[in-house]
Amino acid sequence: MKQNIYDNPTFFKDYISLRESGITYNDFVEQPAMKSAMPDLRGKTVLDLGCGDGHFSTYCIENGAAKVIGADISSNMIARAKKNNSHDNIEFICVSMEDLELPDQQFDLIISSLSVHYIEDFPNLVQKVSRLLKNNGEFIFSTEHPIATARKGSNHWVKYEKGDKLHWALDNYQEEGKREHDWYVDGVVIYHRTISTLINTLIENGLVLEKVIEPQSTAAGLEQMPKLINEKRRPSELPPVK
Amino acid sequence: MKQNIYDNPTFFKDYISLRESGITYNDFVEQPAMKSAMPDLRGKTVLDLGCGDGHFSTYCIENGAAKVIGADISSNMIARAKKNNSHDNIEFICVSMEDLELPDQQFDLIISSLSVHYIEDFPNLVQKVSRLLKNNGEFIFSTEHPIATARKGSNHWVKYEKGDKLHWALDNYQEEGKREHDWYVDGVVIYHRTISTLINTLIENGLVLEKVIEPQSTAAGLEQMPKLINEKRRPSELPPVK
Repeated sequence: MKQNIYDNPTFFKDYISLRESGITYNDFVEQPAMKSAMPDLRGKTVLDLGCGDGHFSTYCIENGAAKVIGADISSNMIARAKKNNSHDNIEFICVSMEDLELPDQQFDLIISSLSVHYIEDFPNLVQKVSRLLKNNGEFIFSTEHPIATARKGSNHWVKYEKGDKLHWALDNYQEEGKREHDWYVDGVVIYHRTISTLINTLIENGLVLEKVIEPQSTAAGLEQMPKLINEKRRPSELPPVK
Repeated sequence: MKQNIYDNPTFFKDYISLRESGITYNDFVEQPAMKSAMPDLRGKTVLDLGCGDGHFSTYCIENGAAKVIGADISSNMIARAKKNNSHDNIEFICVSMEDLELPDQQFDLIISSLSVHYIEDFPNLVQKVSRLLKNNGEFIFSTEHPIATARKGSNHWVKYEKGDKLHWALDNYQEEGKREHDWYVDGVVIYHRTISTLINTLIENGLVLEKVIEPQSTAAGLEQMPKLINEKRRPSELPPVK
């Protein structure tokens, strides 16, 4: 089943409020890492999978990309993208990654920011990416870290009585598949995959691994969100790069 | 400082006793994974880094390798290797990986079984491996998993009062470097490195990542060592493969 949590009104409202604060994990950990991995974008054609509100599509255009297609399953998100990030050279389409078909098109760059952990069939997605990439094209994506997703249940910091974090609880690592966690609404579904599955799936589908980043917070992030120091204790995100 | 724990008499005696039992983590988890990653060995020249008692060197010869050099820092281990695994086409040398120099030699295959986590300077080792490999040569190694080595201190299963394992405690992931744990003797030193460091160091030194294995126990292992079921809960070993 394809999950469309971003069209849940409660989730969407709270999520947008979080993102608009500009003080998020994405701002200080994930986006800096993704941007650091980007090639020279000038003249490139880009596919942005799970584009959300389109901020990364706009980033690509601002850095010289010739054409971007942004795809997202959520009509809420695509409406927001069209409102806030419209541009002559960006096309936003409302379609799931699973259903996306772009026959006869290929891209220099495919990006996906914190979306592939919502996808049940990762090999199928990577096959699609491989087909949609030009020769020497690049796939840059971020996903929740297997260390963060492994244990079943929600919230895995084990705490002292006073609330300080004692350690991160890890379990169920080799049991891949569905995990439900509570994030604004109950039962948001993501899929846990091991590190070896993530990497080997890329390689088996003809991609060449160029780099893996396990980002920590920027200095500004540590100042504005002190809890990001915990990224030093357990990583929460992993963007491999073709 | 280069550690030579296998020349500590207490450690060596207990370690040999464990390995001779034939009922170990190595027998049921690590060695099957390493062997599954091996290429066709016929006619190959092999360098076995941290060869220990030479069992893997012998395995290579038995499977058709033309010539093996086994190197280990421990004179205890090399003496044992010469006694138990001597062969006309195996040369055992007592030297640390750090000090090993084999000018004018190159190999089809370099293997290293659970040794590289004893090495402080991993980039230096990988540079050496890269130089010692023929074109299209392969490097296959296993190392303790970053999930297993991350937290400072010893023994990280958090247990219920009755002793059952509740979860694995993870912490200090991004703080790379020395970890001491107690294994027969106090203060055995290993080095924790993140997944991204392990992988990126290979790639930056010209190797191409072909596969990562996070092995679980064989069926025989689960029968003879029921505790190996815990490998499903948290991985302890990681052999990437060039």
